[in-house]
Amino acid sequence: MPSTHRHVVVRNIQRAPTDVMTRLAAAGVATVHEAAGRTGLLGPTIQARQTGHTIAGSAVTVASHPGDNLMIHAAVEMCQPGDVLVVTTTSESSDGMFGDLLASSLMARGVVGLVIDAGVRDIADLRAMGFPVWSKAVHAQGTVKASPGSVNVPVVAAGAAIRPGDVVVADDDGVVVVSRELAATVADAAEGRLANEANKREALAAGTLGVDLYDLRPLLADLGVVYVDDPVEDKP
Amino acid sequence: MPSTHRHVVVRNIQRAPTDVMTRLAAAGVATVHEAAGRTGLLGPTIQARQTGHTIAGSAVTVASHPGDNLMIHAAVEMCQPGDVLVVTTTSESSDGMFGDLLASSLMARGVVGLVIDAGVRDIADLRAMGFPVWSKAVHAQGTVKASPGSVNVPVVAAGAAIRPGDVVVADDDGVVVVSRELAATVADAAEGRLANEANKREALAAGTLGVDLYDLRPLLADLGVVYVDDPVEDKP
Amino acid sequence: MPSTHRHVVVRNIQRAPTDVMTRLAAAGVATVHEAAGRTGLLGPTIQARQTGHTIAGSAVTVASHPGDNLMIHAAVEMCQPGDVLVVTTTSESSDGMFGDLLASSLMARGVVGLVIDAGVRDIADLRAMGFPVWSKAVHAQGTVKASPGSVNVPVVAAGAAIRPGDVVVADDDGVVVVSRELAATVADAAEGRLANEANKREALAAGTLGVDLYDLRPLLADLGVVYVDDPVEDKP
Amino acid sequence: MPSTHRHVVVRNIQRAPTDVMTRLAAAGVATVHEAAGRTGLLGPTIQARQTGHTIAGSAVTVASHPGDNLMIHAAVEMCQPGDVLVVTTTSESSDGMFGDLLASSLMARGVVGLVIDAGVRDIADLRAMGFPVWSKAVHAQGTVKASPGSVNVPVVAAGAAIRPGDVVVADDDGVVVVSRELAATVADAAEGRLANEANKREALAAGTLGVDLYDLRPLLADLGVVYVDDPVEDKP
Amino acid sequence: MPSTHRHVVVRNIQRAPTDVMTRLAAAGVATVHEAAGRTGLLGPTIQARQTGHTIAGSAVTVASHPGDNLMIHAAVEMCQPGDVLVVTTTSESSDGMFGDLLASSLMARGVVGLVIDAGVRDIADLRAMGFPVWSKAVHAQGTVKASPGSVNVPVVAAGAAIRPGDVVVADDDGVVVVSRELAATVADAAEGRLANEANKREALAAGTLGVDLYDLRPLLADLGVVYVDDPVEDKP
Amino acid sequence: MPSTHRHVVVRNIQRAPTDVMTRLAAAGVATVHEAAGRTGLLGPTIQARQTGHTIAGSAVTVASHPGDNLMIHAAVEMCQPGDVLVVTTTSESSDGMFGDLLASSLMARGVVGLVIDAGVRDIADLRAMGFPVWSKAVHAQGTVKASPGSVNVPVVAAGAAIRPGDVVVADDDGVVVVSRELAATVADAAEGRLANEANKREALAAGTLGVDLYDLRPLLADLGVVYVDDPVEDKP
Repeated sequence: MPSTHRHVVVRNIQRAPTDVMTRLAAAGVATVHEAAGRTGLLGPTIQARQTGHTIAGSAVTVASHPGDNLMIHAAVEMCQPGDVLVVTTTSESSDGMFGDLLASSLMARGVVGLVIDAGVRDIADLRAMGFPVWSKAVHAQGTVKASPGSVNVPVVAAGAAIRPGDVVVADDDGVVVVSRELAATVADAAEGRLANEANKREALAAGTLGVDLYDLRPLLADLGVVYVDDPVEDKP
Repeated sequence: MPSTHRHVVVRNIQRAPTDVMTRLAAAGVATVHEAAGRTGLLGPTIQARQTGHTIAGSAVTVASHPGDNLMIHAAVEMCQPGDVLVVTTTSESSDGMFGDLLASSLMARGVVGLVIDAGVRDIADLRAMGFPVWSKAVHAQGTVKASPGSVNVPVVAAGAAIRPGDVVVADDDGVVVVSRELAATVADAAEGRLANEANKREALAAGTLGVDLYDLRPLLADLGVVYVDDPVEDKP
Repeated sequence: MPSTHRHVVVRNIQRAPTDVMTRLAAAGVATVHEAAGRTGLLGPTIQARQTGHTIAGSAVTVASHPGDNLMIHAAVEMCQPGDVLVVTTTSESSDGMFGDLLASSLMARGVVGLVIDAGVRDIADLRAMGFPVWSKAVHAQGTVKASPGSVNVPVVAAGAAIRPGDVVVADDDGVVVVSRELAATVADAAEGRLANEANKREALAAGTLGVDLYDLRPLLADLGVVYVDDPVEDKP
Repeated sequence: MPSTHRHVVVRNIQRAPTDVMTRLAAAGVATVHEAAGRTGLLGPTIQARQTGHTIAGSAVTVASHPGDNLMIHAAVEMCQPGDVLVVTTTSESSDGMFGDLLASSLMARGVVGLVIDAGVRDIADLRAMGFPVWSKAVHAQGTVKASPGSVNVPVVAAGAAIRPGDVVVADDDGVVVVSRELAATVADAAEGRLANEANKREALAAGTLGVDLYDLRPLLADLGVVYVDDPVEDKP
Repeated sequence: MPSTHRHVVVRNIQRAPTDVMTRLAAAGVATVHEAAGRTGLLGPTIQARQTGHTIAGSAVTVASHPGDNLMIHAAVEMCQPGDVLVVTTTSESSDGMFGDLLASSLMARGVVGLVIDAGVRDIADLRAMGFPVWSKAVHAQGTVKASPGSVNVPVVAAGAAIRPGDVVVADDDGVVVVSRELAATVADAAEGRLANEANKREALAAGTLGVDLYDLRPLLADLGVVYVDDPVEDKP
Repeated sequence: MPSTHRHVVVRNIQRAPTDVMTRLAAAGVATVHEAAGRTGLLGPTIQARQTGHTIAGSAVTVASHPGDNLMIHAAVEMCQPGDVLVVTTTSESSDGMFGDLLASSLMARGVVGLVIDAGVRDIADLRAMGFPVWSKAVHAQGTVKASPGSVNVPVVAAGAAIRPGDVVVADDDGVVVVSRELAATVADAAEGRLANEANKREALAAGTLGVDLYDLRPLLADLGVVYVDDPVEDKP
């Protein structure tokens, strides 16, 4: 059997400094995504299943067989306070692989949230417990504990590659992942953007137009966009 | 014309005892689904359109032509207090076949909720009235009253087969159907699970790991899952 | 280069009278859609991203390259108090083309809401600001300002054709568009329906059946729908 | 453990007479669906993965865990010449649960085709072998043999309920299921339709209009459809 | 009842000259779409259901109730040789509204193809007859003849607005619509593009790079794209 | 500006030995996927757009802005004989970013095929040229050349992570990627599986059951699967 077959649970992963994660959480997903050069964003199929929660933490990753939550249980032991559990399946699934029991277990370990490219259940309980989840579905479909998988290996969730220890930021806009190595740089850039955006917001709220604020009129002209007074008699 | 063509409204259906339905509602969808051997769950395309409502009731079923709500009106007369109206279409539709007027009519008859494999409209009114709905869509698209269909015949909704008089349980996790004949057995099993889960939840919240609580370490070893200390140098 | 290539920003569009729009907002999407002969409804892919907001306003339309919000900035200048910005892309996109900065700008101009056949971001901020949006997605994906498009040309959003100056009505049920020329006629019809519906709702809430209220029994008989007492021994 | 948990393989199922299935195959899916009162049609998510094959046979049904083909192997033994294997999963899956090895096994037993509400692989081999499949996906994703399921129990595939021994008819238009008890009646009706359609086809090909052939003009008038000479000045 | 409710069949529509349509067919969908300024393309949900057919013709449009083909029959009478029938439904449907009988009728009138934002059936027959169709689905689902609609009114199909008499061009790449008024201009532009493309194809086939042929190197530099020799040590 | 913003074209990538790629192509996608421990498979959204082509080659990767094919042109220059071009977009797109002109250019450089997580056009020409493509869509939608991206950086396509120089194998079953470092090991394992499968196929074709060949009867018993003679009186 070639080594490609191995299912592993990796015990030791490197994590970004806590303060960097705090700064990224403060910036929020949209700003972090911009600050990271518009990379690392998970697709819109994964949605916040509550409102008003913003988290950032180190990814503990899980690659599970679809319809099987055995490896989620194995992953819990690898979690530390401040981590975010990131669950993927080896093929598409919307099964409810995660519910209030696993959330109790993760909260006991200080995990700050779950990102899962599959379904969750007991959603009313999860909301009541204050444990935030970002998932592809809410579905009560039960799972088995029968097939092997891996913990803390690189995974892909909703089109984004995530390595163990990468920083996951999630809020009402969705989820973005920042590589551990770039996390501090991105936090710097994000804070720069926040300051810059505050000025812009003030100007725009005062009535300054974006076409002026961003100096877009020359670009529009260059691109051949023509201003006309009267309606164009064209069909849609 | 063979008998296969008949469109019927069936007047008399058998219903499960009220107390069994009350017990199933108390258990909730995820637990009932487990207690029923992980059968009867409707797919995640049908979602709760409000939060915090749990219902259980006897299914009064409707098979409608798409874009036509004639048979829903015919079904109202067949409803009794405690029933759940279950509406399906003979082919895919997201039309808003149900709104506040039909809800008024159902509430007048004591119906406790609607499950529809199509759309609803007047959703703000439905929420204000406190009439819970589980639907595939919210869509204002109007319908006609022109084509025949049937009431209280077996139907399929979101991948689950439902017979008239089956018990429908619905909450924020979705919808599950339990056969009338098995409803009491499933209620027993569900209550057993609830007691069992309370113990587990307590243990997990206290820090016991699922791999220990469920004795999963031998299984992981049998399946060839290996614990390693250092990261695996593998691409995602 | 044929004229078909021209990208234009049209400055002057005709708008429906404000009072007509107020009347349409009061009627709501489902009733307006009915009053308009069940035309003009946007598909259910575009959803309200908040609850409890009903708006009606004149459409200022945008046709953008996907992943590019340059033309939204150009459109802001064309907006007047009471307008609704309607954004479409020349091919499918769920990118977050609109966020809190553009919302600040639109609010400064008195725009009452956004309908976008793409994504929005900063959704928590948009909700906090009270600026209502109807969109296909919530997605933080950033966009560029690089490609030309048009403002105030006819567009198609979620399957509905919209011309600049058409009246857009939006609430928790979705979005409907009414041609400017027919807006007053539709408002009249909508108000007629509201009065009529109030009577029906009262009758239905009092227990009158829809099959009697709408006189559907003869139709059911004509269509060959048969009432039977006992269950039909048929498979689903 | 309540009886609801049992996983079973049922050995003896009743089948429709061979000649009835031959007649249904000759009629084809669209005609059989009509003859059966427009019931029993699987949704368009399940498609023919080759062209030009029409089959009809008795359903041997499988309910599998997603991502697991153990029960397909158990089902092979239950198949007889002329059967159609019908595979479903307990939750959504597009995994390639079936390939050329299983096809070899089924062909050895005289099975005439596969209908699967999941994926197939080795599609080039399946086509070369002349073993027709109707599936939701073509996907190479491998599966395990780890979880229990059932054979020859009632299932739902693509929205249609199928019992063991029901007649499955499939061609380039898709798949329809006819209950064993009604198969002969439906075959009679289908043949009546075929004769009738031949006359209609001849008339239509000769230029007779459907509005005349079906006498639709009075209906159009009754429904208020008005013929006008000039274009309607309406926006889309 | 306001005029908005009227269902009409429009008898007289204007058509583009035959030779213009012949020229557009010769150019094919991708080139016509480019020549029309990248407008008028139907979305990829509508696909060719055969290979190797290219058609262009005048749109005779149908707006049908979903699951109802009454208005298709009414539309046949309005068709002339060289026309393309364009069928839409007032809400989403994949029903098989069109089969071999209607195709026989259309072929008798010289109609060159069908574009339908819904399903077709009898697909094997349609291919054998040589009648090309572009549809959203192949589905045997039967329809009724019960609800009114309109013929030769503006419609929206797969996101594109189509007016009666517009030129519809369709091939293996999909479907594009060109307004009748611009058809000749677009045909001119398309032929210019074809000549231009032949030169480009020759150059590219001979090994000239697109970055040189289109002079893209300065643009890449302006946009900040940097050429580097060694791999970037970045995660996906 | 942090380094995260850089758009790069990487000139030198490492490739797997040609003979290894030949061996992987001979094994085909399903077998390679198994041999690689069921990893690296692209999702079923990416499909072969022709039949009967099997390729294997080194990935030259592209990360493009949606609706923009500038970077594909930049990538052509980086291609060598035997390469496979792999195109992704930074957010979802089905635009026809690739057609016959680019195919001419790639064929001139000896590229053996295209894998694109977006659309292609000129599909009839591509088939006629014998240039195989695997894509998410066929769509004539045109693109611009306006926004920067990268070439030969790690990308994610249809849920699978792909690095420059990884081996891409594609056939009628879809697409799988194998890391360059493991390619030879996987080729060995694939050939072992092929030999093994030939034996199994022979046994199965001769009537041996999979439950015996794989010794599954004890597992079925362990899992509690019960063989019964008579139908289970259960609803679907």
